[in-house]
This record gives sequence, structure tokens and C-alpha cells, in this order.
Amino acid sequence: MSSIFGNKFKISIFGESHGKAIGVVLDGLPAGIELDMDFIKGELSRRQPGKSIFSTPRKEKDDFEILSGYFCGRTTGSPLSAVIFNRDTKSRDYEELKLLPRPGHADYTGFVKYGGFNDYRGGGHFSGRLTAPLVFAGAVAKQVLKMQNIIIASHIKSIHDVCDESFDSINIDEEALKELINSDFPVLDALAGQKMKELILDAKKEKDSVGGIIETIVINLEPGLGSPFFDGVESRMAHALFSIPAVKGIEFGSGFDITRLRGSQANDEFVLEGDRIVTSTNHNGGILGGITTGMPLLFRVAIKPTPSIGISQGTVDIQKMQETTIMVKGRHDPCIVPRAIPAVEAAAAVVILDLLFERDGEHGLFRGFKSADR
Amino acid sequence: MSSIFGNKFKISIFGESHGKAIGVVLDGLPAGIELDMDFIKGELSRRQPGKSIFSTPRKEKDDFEILSGYFCGRTTGSPLSAVIFNRDTKSRDYEELKLLPRPGHADYTGFVKYGGFNDYRGGGHFSGRLTAPLVFAGAVAKQVLKMQNIIIASHIKSIHDVCDESFDSINIDEEALKELINSDFPVLDALAGQKMKELILDAKKEKDSVGGIIETIVINLEPGLGSPFFDGVESRMAHALFSIPAVKGIEFGSGFDITRLRGSQANDEFVLEGDRIVTSTNHNGGILGGITTGMPLLFRVAIKPTPSIGISQGTVDIQKMQETTIMVKGRHDPCIVPRAIPAVEAAAAVVILDLLFERDGEHGLFRGFKSADR
Amino acid sequence: MSSIFGNKFKISIFGESHGKAIGVVLDGLPAGIELDMDFIKGELSRRQPGKSIFSTPRKEKDDFEILSGYFCGRTTGSPLSAVIFNRDTKSRDYEELKLLPRPGHADYTGFVKYGGFNDYRGGGHFSGRLTAPLVFAGAVAKQVLKMQNIIIASHIKSIHDVCDESFDSINIDEEALKELINSDFPVLDALAGQKMKELILDAKKEKDSVGGIIETIVINLEPGLGSPFFDGVESRMAHALFSIPAVKGIEFGSGFDITRLRGSQANDEFVLEGDRIVTSTNHNGGILGGITTGMPLLFRVAIKPTPSIGISQGTVDIQKMQETTIMVKGRHDPCIVPRAIPAVEAAAAVVILDLLFERDGEHGLFRGFKSADR
Amino acid sequence: MSSIFGNKFKISIFGESHGKAIGVVLDGLPAGIELDMDFIKGELSRRQPGKSIFSTPRKEKDDFEILSGYFCGRTTGSPLSAVIFNRDTKSRDYEELKLLPRPGHADYTGFVKYGGFNDYRGGGHFSGRLTAPLVFAGAVAKQVLKMQNIIIASHIKSIHDVCDESFDSINIDEEALKELINSDFPVLDALAGQKMKELILDAKKEKDSVGGIIETIVINLEPGLGSPFFDGVESRMAHALFSIPAVKGIEFGSGFDITRLRGSQANDEFVLEGDRIVTSTNHNGGILGGITTGMPLLFRVAIKPTPSIGISQGTVDIQKMQETTIMVKGRHDPCIVPRAIPAVEAAAAVVILDLLFERDGEHGLFRGFKSADR
Repeated sequence: MSSIFGNKFKISIFGESHGKAIGVVLDGLPAGIELDMDFIKGELSRRQPGKSIFSTPRKEKDDFEILSGYFCGRTTGSPLSAVIFNRDTKSRDYEELKLLPRPGHADYTGFVKYGGFNDYRGGGHFSGRLTAPLVFAGAVAKQVLKMQNIIIASHIKSIHDVCDESFDSINIDEEALKELINSDFPVLDALAGQKMKELILDAKKEKDSVGGIIETIVINLEPGLGSPFFDGVESRMAHALFSIPAVKGIEFGSGFDITRLRGSQANDEFVLEGDRIVTSTNHNGGILGGITTGMPLLFRVAIKPTPSIGISQGTVDIQKMQETTIMVKGRHDPCIVPRAIPAVEAAAAVVILDLLFERDGEHGLFRGFKSADR
Repeated sequence: MSSIFGNKFKISIFGESHGKAIGVVLDGLPAGIELDMDFIKGELSRRQPGKSIFSTPRKEKDDFEILSGYFCGRTTGSPLSAVIFNRDTKSRDYEELKLLPRPGHADYTGFVKYGGFNDYRGGGHFSGRLTAPLVFAGAVAKQVLKMQNIIIASHIKSIHDVCDESFDSINIDEEALKELINSDFPVLDALAGQKMKELILDAKKEKDSVGGIIETIVINLEPGLGSPFFDGVESRMAHALFSIPAVKGIEFGSGFDITRLRGSQANDEFVLEGDRIVTSTNHNGGILGGITTGMPLLFRVAIKPTPSIGISQGTVDIQKMQETTIMVKGRHDPCIVPRAIPAVEAAAAVVILDLLFERDGEHGLFRGFKSADR
Repeated sequence: MSSIFGNKFKISIFGESHGKAIGVVLDGLPAGIELDMDFIKGELSRRQPGKSIFSTPRKEKDDFEILSGYFCGRTTGSPLSAVIFNRDTKSRDYEELKLLPRPGHADYTGFVKYGGFNDYRGGGHFSGRLTAPLVFAGAVAKQVLKMQNIIIASHIKSIHDVCDESFDSINIDEEALKELINSDFPVLDALAGQKMKELILDAKKEKDSVGGIIETIVINLEPGLGSPFFDGVESRMAHALFSIPAVKGIEFGSGFDITRLRGSQANDEFVLEGDRIVTSTNHNGGILGGITTGMPLLFRVAIKPTPSIGISQGTVDIQKMQETTIMVKGRHDPCIVPRAIPAVEAAAAVVILDLLFERDGEHGLFRGFKSADR
Repeated sequence: MSSIFGNKFKISIFGESHGKAIGVVLDGLPAGIELDMDFIKGELSRRQPGKSIFSTPRKEKDDFEILSGYFCGRTTGSPLSAVIFNRDTKSRDYEELKLLPRPGHADYTGFVKYGGFNDYRGGGHFSGRLTAPLVFAGAVAKQVLKMQNIIIASHIKSIHDVCDESFDSINIDEEALKELINSDFPVLDALAGQKMKELILDAKKEKDSVGGIIETIVINLEPGLGSPFFDGVESRMAHALFSIPAVKGIEFGSGFDITRLRGSQANDEFVLEGDRIVTSTNHNGGILGGITTGMPLLFRVAIKPTPSIGISQGTVDIQKMQETTIMVKGRHDPCIVPRAIPAVEAAAAVVILDLLFERDGEHGLFRGFKSADR
């Protein structure tokens, strides 16, 4: 599939960091959806660098342009395509790196796979910049999910060794989630957030970088979405999430910690809440057998420290086949975690929308729109 | 996709735990491959229950029967299909559970998705028993990988709170890996293994269960397999691995721990080893930008404690919509981890074979067979 | 995709003509459907050889066995798999043909593609026998379509140079269609049918074979199924239909003859029929822009003369690389057309069911079943 | 799939006739290919309207712009995306047609499917204009095929009731094929061509339109491409070809005429030509069992008369639900056949390139490029 993803709702991502443009085609989106362009801009701006001392000063003006699939203020049902033209690119910074693969980056693997023909500038198609089209897709998907009252929110669970509290995935405080959504540096414990910021600035000072963990929750999902085996919610979510550069681990519910529980603790018992069947705990993160239980879907994603650092590192000159060192110049983030949040949420939103379309079909979910008076 | 997986090499799994048979169709396997049937039996036997005090006494005779795609001792290039007839099934054990979803199982989500029409006996299509066809597919894939010298090995990284050592993913001891492959309870540290077994027996005594972590390594992969974004090795591996029931987390290389490193530590520096470019550390687990680096591929999978336990648990009668309790009778494993290893390896093998086919095509990898004298 | 087809409703076909068994996995079929096994047997029997003087005397006992996906008389929602064991196989007839490709058959192309490892007996996986699993899938699909009142019927439009009348695709006589469905040799004009049979017997006497054209109609389809471009109804139908061995041409509506009309004649004008929008002619065969119009879907399929004939033909010994002749012994049909009808209808049924699932989703079409009292 | 097509080499088409832009993303194209931009322009120009008295005077400036996947004069291996901005659009012509579906067009089916939200101007996404991105994709594919010496050529087999000669698919005259490629109105018999042109002008004078048949040949294909059943060459070709608006029939080799031959005539006998196995006739059009034989691949496509005509036709006002008439104003072609040729060839080229990639993999076909000195 390469740069195409999805079953019914497909996204096709293209572009290179320092090429003419990056973009995305959304195929399978139902007709008749009004899009809030400011919301999309807002999501892109959450991902955008250059906004704070915690991120790279490269100023990408992520102004998207919709080329098709949108007419008279609504989706047409045909592929919705959007492009973002690259502007503030300093390609010369990268030329000397052409044959010197940067440790932790995809320069070497890209060279091997593409025989040296890939666009090496700024990581090319491997660049984190390619998450902008993903965030665009997610911003569209989120708007459709919002119509079903489905909300996605995240916080920074940890930066390096400083940890935030965890989401309570049983008792949901929707107001608190909305605050997180509007925050540039979302944490549950403000004090932990303060320490995280200090850590990032320390790393920045030393031209180094730090990573962290993002915890994401999706609420108001109905039970019954997903399938056993290869179309399980965890399988598809993980597939999408690992496509985000820098993600090295994913866990649902209690995740790796569930291995330290006994079955009698890990099994979420069923209870009644009014006329709804719920579970009294949520160690399984809202998924059993690959299918949603109706409990909040909870997952965590490990983001490695930004590989671009201003410190000398060992590498090999691919042409001369000699060991040497490299110092990555140019602009880079001391910590990518806050900017990765909208990408993580976008991947989740895209998968959930696809699951809804599969369950409800073209006519199901959007039958309402069909009778819309034009 | 539901129960079909793969790009060029596709597997289609079918069957229910207590139905007539379970099976698998392998589509896209090249022609001319001789299969070692004893090896396949051995792999199925690693997964098979009833062999030791650590697993359920249900005795499944996992005798597979190949129905197509194999002729004169070699694959034909057409779909290879195999079935395993179910024999030792005691369906009556399950009848009373029809409307009482077992906590931690997919009974409730299956009921919602399939409207009560799914085969509820023993978990039906959701059953861990469905990993037998996956293990069959993996056993076929492993044989092809072995021809390329690619070896997959695993050990039990932890059971509950007892941890084994970790794989050294830089200096590989192939002999030690082969020993692990032949072990029923593979660990690096025998003492830890002993403690793990005690823990399992303790849980069994108390009719409870425990989970654990499996660590898997794949060696001798060439660099350049996989793609950026949605066809990345991590994406596809995670997709396949999360299809295994009970898996709740996946991490590659240093995984979640990489978030506690700085960029200067996490970046694997490139060095020369003879005329090969390698990395001096392997925090990225052999993958950069979704593409193999040529270093050992390393990942860990979190297996939750077996949900079937002999202790009374709270549930809801779906028909009466009343809270009640349930005591799961019948046979079950106090710990599924050792039996899950061949399934985890199978998922990895299937993905890697698919990657090889994509890179080399139908004629590439197997051109050798084509000229075979018949 | 090879032997797997479909978007939401996928079929995976396996087997070889003289192997142990042939079969099919239906993935994505909703739960709760009662299947009429006699209807399935009837469909298989329409395809079955050995029943009349017009077909091969090979007696295949096409007794299917359902291995999974069916429980308590209804589909479970999990993959439905069925196998048909091969019995009346005389493999020795084929051994001498191993290196002598039969003209008009896939022996040579199969040899090249699979390097000589394919099962050459009776055409192996290329055999028309592989349409039996397709007919099984079609028989299941037709039952679901019948619930929506969608009916598929066909007649023999021509055998060699003898032509039947054409379907009136405006004024539908449902009773006449039902008669065709129950006929072994369905024609609209009995006299033409008589001449066709004589032609077939003539060919048989001379150990030769004849081909013909099948015309198929699908009624009671709602407008709006299908998509522009690559998911158009014609694209998907043609994809499925050309998978049937011996099909060499496909046309929809007036097909090739539409090229001899002017636009003013070919354009089907819209008129009202009560409160329904219909067209007064149907040159477009019920499809505009890849989407159903609600008018009967009409198509024709060209079936080449059976390649197996009892006359000496020129071929090349692949090993010796010498020109030689071959005389195909064994059993064969003088005309495959009547037996091809259920396969053609099956391909159509499978595509239409897939289109319905895409439009209505898992919950849409079958929401009724979900509330079924068990 | 909707507007995405392909297995390894995928194309994703987007845009609407009167929207901002139309375009295409090519996913899976190998790295290192130099593209001849003039050749691409030439192909687009063959499809372009406004060039002669036989086509619509709308002047589309089909200047494409490559946004990604091309760097330093070669493909990068990442998705190659190209857009064509729409310029000469007169949307007002179409406003009155919003609720009056044009006979023969997809206006009505689009309205039903998309609930009236589709971009109705000029057919929107259904427009023949969307073949421009397909032609772009084909122009890229053709260049790669040319490196393998694979050539695609076509002629107008018929316009209305005037027929050209047929291709000789046994004795190939490559020079004659090249002349056809460079012709605006390719025919084998110049006299027939003259009559065709007169017919078109007659139809134009009467504000009517005519259709015709395109015959296409592909030479120098190796044997062994394609698969039995659902990945057969005919299946995939037909899938792609029926996506072109106005195509109503497809046949391979002798096609529908093969039904009037006996088996002894239709079976192409194998003979030796030097050390190559060929067939002495080519009724099967270069394909047996879905796989190429190595003989020229031959097919014909039926193109219906342009539905846009300047004559009053019956339709229904969708809102008022009243019968009425419509007169299509604006620009239209009296005959689309000559302009459809590059689209037909593009569909074929895209499928063949995909088949080559599947057979040879990423490294196979283009291994040469990999060692390229940069």
C-alpha cells in the first residue's frame, strides 16, 4: 500500500519535505458534509513548528488548498484532495548530508531502498512534515466523528523520565478533555507539565533532544466496531499509528502493565449502568476480540527523541565507505512530542471513521444528509 | 479485510473453535517450494495445548490436511489450503455461557457485532485456537525464510513480575537462538525460568492466570525491506501481531524505554563492519523510517493473563439484562505465554515473507526454482 | 489478489481439478442468514457435468461440505468456508500431456508462470472445475439478493451462428425469467434452442466443440449502486466475469452495437413511471457513470468453444523443444455454454452483494436479523 | 476502491471537471526513472479537446504540474503526484441543468448516489476530463514499458457503421504501429478513415454524435504475466478499461466472434519460431488462463456516441418530478473516439506496468537503476 491507507475511507499521502508541495487525497468520504475550515487550520497549527521555544524555528505556513471534492460548502462524495505548498525550505542545509546518513533518521534505509534516488533534503518523503497531510485528513475525520459525539483527546503522559497522571478511562470528565484539546502542552498535572518543559529546555540548551509518551482517549464509541483477527481495532490503529515517524511502541488499555496483573484483576467485569452494559474497570482499553466494547478506547504511543540533534555523531560516508562524524545543522525540535499529538489523534480518527463507514455503509451514517434540502 | 491479511502473500483464516474445522488459504506462495511437513507439525505442536502442566488439558490433535496447492512434493503456485478438523470439543460446557459474556473474552463484543448469531462455543472464531492456522502459515513462511538464512527466535521476557534478561541485538549467538527455538519454555536465564514456572503453578492452584511479555528477534534480514508510512515494517508487523488474541502492546527496539533516552543516546550511530554498514547500538530495533536497516529486528509483545479463570466473576445476563456472576468451567491455561510464541513468530514470518515477495517479485526470489529440472 | 476477490464481501477460491479438494472462503458475509442448502445443491448441479449428452460424462459428485461460519442454521458472521472433495478423477489421462501444452488451454502459460511446478492434471487450478466454488459463492449471494427481491436470470443468446432472441430489458416478465432459471438449456425461442442442440451434437460427432454467448439480466436493483471510475459496476462485473475460464468478451446494454447508434438514439431518455424515474430505452444496460440507474442490468458474455477436442492439433514438446501433435483424450464437453451460466450468474451475484454491503454496511442491510429472537 | 486502482503500482485519481484542479497520485513507481516531459505533454495533447473540427472547441490547457516524487530529473520512489489546473471552465452553462439529468450522462445516478451534493458542473468527477490524469499515468507507465521494448498502439476500428481493417496480430509491422501512434486519427485503411471523418461531420451538422470501436495491440510482452482467476490479465484490463466513461464493451482476441468458430479453429496451435514457442493464430489475443502467452495482446473497446448532443431530449425535473425536455448547450464532441485512444492505451499501460512490478518486484525490473552512479 505504501502511502495509501484504509478500507472504505482511504487516504493517499504524497509529497516531500523540501519538494514543491505535500498533500493528501481522501477517497470514500460521503457527500454532503460541511467542513469547518478554521478547525482544520487549528489542527494544522497544533502540528506546526516554529510556534514556541520547544520546537524548531522553521516557519511552515501550512496553508492548505482544497483542489477537489468540495463544492458549495459541502463534500461532493468524490475524492477530496488538498495540497500544502512548501515555502520556508532551505535545501542547501541538506546538500552536504546527501551521502552522510544521519543516525536515527531514515537517510540510510531510504538510500538503500531507493538506490540513492530519493529526495534526501530534510528526510524527503520520510519527513515528519508528511504528518501535515495526515493531520488534514484527521481534521476532516474528527468533524464527522463529532457529529456522532465521538471525541478524541490526548495528554503528554511523559517526557523523558517525568510522568503525568493517567487518564481515568471509567469516569470521563468531558470538560477536562476539551481543555486538553485546546492546550498547546496538554497535561493533567500542571506541575508535571512544568517539569517537562524544563527538561525540554535543558535538552535544547545541550543541543540534545528528548522523547516521551502520548496517552489518547476516544469516548462515545458504540460497541461492535471492528472485527476479529486482521481487521481488529488494535491492528488497524497500530498500523496507522506506526506510520507516524518516531513512534516505537503502542499499547492499549493497561498495555504492557496488564502482564503484571492476574486474570482475576485484568478481566474487566460487566455491570449495568442504567440500561447499558459497561465494565467496572477498563484494563482492555475499550477493545475485546478486536471489537469496541463501548468503553472509552485508551492507548499510549512511545515517541522517540527527535533524531536531529546539534551534537557530533558517528556515521559512514556511503560513497567513500569511510567512518566519519556528522553534525546536523539546521532547525530542529528539542522535543517532538507536543507536535506529534495531532498526528496521533489524526491516525486514530481516520481509522475510526473507516470503521464507522464499514459498519454503516455509504447510506447508513449519512442518510441524514441525503435528504438535505438544496 | 477481516480474516484475510497480506499484500502479495495473503493468508485467509477460517473456522470456529468448536465447529467442524479450522483452516487457512495461502495465496501468492511461489511454485516449487518443498515443504518439511515434520517442521510444520513441530510448530503446531509448540502451540498445541495439553502437553504440560502449564496449559489446558484439552487435547487438540492438530493434524493438518493439505487440500490444494501442493503436488509432487512441491508448492504449485496456486493457493495452498490446509484444514485442521476439530475433534476434542466439549460444546456442552459452553451452552450455559451463551448469554453470560465472560469478562476479558470477546463474548460480549461478538454478541453485539453479530447480533447473537456468532458461534459462542469456546469463543468461536475469536478463539485462540484460530492461531493454529496462523502457525501453519508461519511454518510455511519460516521455511522459505530459512532458505534466505533468515531466522526468528523468541524467549519469554517476563511472566507477571519475573523478568528474564534481554536479547543482545548487536552480538548474535546463533547457536543460543537455535536452542531457544527448540525449547518448550525458552528463557535466557534458567533461574528466572524456574521462578516463572512456580508463578504459573501458583496461579493455577488458585484457579487464576498470569500474563507476560514475549521478546522476538529476527536475524539476517537485508536492509531496504518495507516502505515509509503505511507499508512500514512496524505498521505491518503490528497489524499482524495485534490480530493474535490477548496481545495488548507492541514495541520495537527499545520501545517505550526509548522515551527515557536522549537523542544522543537513542540515535544508533553508523559504523563499518568490514564492508557492511551497521549500527553500534540498536535502540531502533532494526527499523528506520519503516524500512529494515539490516540490523536484527527486535520487538516485544505484551500478552494479557488468560481471561478464562476458575474464579467467580461479575457479568450481565444479556437477555434478562441483570447483573449476575459467572464461573468459567472447562479447560483453560493458567498462562498462555509459552504457547503464544509460535503464533507471534508466525505473524512476523508471514509479514517478512510478504515484504520479500514485494521486493523481489514472483520471479526474483524464486528464480532458482524456475529452472529446476523436473 | 490472485484467487481472492471483493471489497467488503470477499471470496477466496482454492483447489486444483485433480487434487484432494476445491473450495472457497466467503469473508464478510453478515451474520444471521439462513441458507437453503437445496438451492445451493441445485446451483452446483446446473454447473455439474455428466448430466446430459451435451456435456462431459465425467461425473463429479459436487457434494459440498461447510467447514465453518454456519451454526444453528444461520451464518455466524465469521468466514464461511466450504469444500468439495474431488472424486471421479482419472489423473493418468493427463500424464502424457505434462510437457505437451494443449492449444487453447492454460497449460503453456501455467508452465511458464509456475516453472513447471503447477498441477497440470486436468488444468489444475486453471480448470473450469474451479467455477464450482464460485457457483457455491454465487448460490449464497443469490439467496441474500432474493431477500431484496433482486433476481438474476440468463439465456443462451447464441451457440455458434444460431441466435436466440434478446431480452426485453424494459418490460420484464418475471414469470418467464423464473422459467429460464429452472431450465437446463434456457432460451427465449424454443426453435432456436432446438437448432443449437443440433449444432452441439454435430460438433460432438466430429469430436469438435462450439462456443456461444450468454445474456444475463438482473432486475430490481435500486439506483445508486457503484461508483465512478475504478469501482464502477461495469469494472467490477467485468473483473469477476473475465475470471471465468473461456470468457473472451463482455458488453453491457447494447454493448458493441451501441457504436452503430447515434447519440440521439443511444441516450436513454428519462421518463416517469408513477413516482419512479426510469428510462424509456435501456441501451446503457442499467448503468450510467458506473452506477446503477434502477433499470434492469443487462450484459452479454462471449464463451469460446471448449478447447478440449478429440482432434489432432499442433503443439510443441516443451522439454524437447520440438513441434509435434496432440490428441486430447479423456472426457470433455462439446459445448460449455449451458454449464457456464451458473458461473456467470454467480460472478454477477457476488459483485452485486458486495455493492450492497458497501452501500449499506454491516448493520444496514441486515439490521433486521440483528434483533432476531434466538 | 473508488478512484484508486492497482496492486503494486497504484493510481489515485481526483478532481472535478469544473473544480479547481484534477490530478493523480502514482504510488509504487520505482526510483530512478527519467521522465520525458514532452512525451507526457504529447499524450495529454492527444486527449485534449479543441484541436480539430471533430472535437469540442473547449480549450483545456492541460499543463500538468508535478508536485512530488520527482527530484533531480528522476523519480524518487515516493508517490509521484501531478495536478492540472482547470482553466477554460464556463460553469454557468451548467447551472440550469442541475435538476435536469442529461440522458446518457451520469447526472441522474450521481444525484442518487451523492444525494445531490456532487459537483454537477460538466459532469463533475464523472467527466471525461478525468481521463486526463489517467493519460498522465499512462504516459509515465508507457515510458517504463518502452524500456522493456513494450509498445502499445491503436487504431479506430470503426466509427458508426464504417469499419477499418483489423490488426494483424501475428505478423507485426512495428513501423506501421509507430505511425499510428503519431496520428491524430489513426486508421489502417485511409479510405475508411476518410469516410469516418465525413460521418462525424454529418453528425456534427445535425448536432448529433457517433460512437465507434478502438482496437489496441500491445507487443513484446513476455509470456507468464498475470494469474488465473481474479488477477487475470483480462480481468484487470477490463476493470481499468471500463472505468473510462463511455466504454460499453470489451473483447480480447477474436472476442465475440470466437463464439462463431469451432474449437478446432479457435485453439491457437503452438509452433516454434526459432527457439521461441509461439502460436500460429491468435484468436485468444495473447492471453490463456489469464496469463500472457507472449503473443501480441489484442483487444477492442466499444465507445458509445457522446451523450452530449444539441438536440432536444426527454428528461425529468428531479425536484418537481415532472417530465420535461432538455437541450444540452455548451461545447461537446460529435465523436469522442479519437480522443479516447490515449485513455484506452493509458489504462492498458497502467495494468501492464503493475503486472511487471508484481512479477519482478521493486528490485527486479529496476535493479539496473539501483547501481546508478549519482
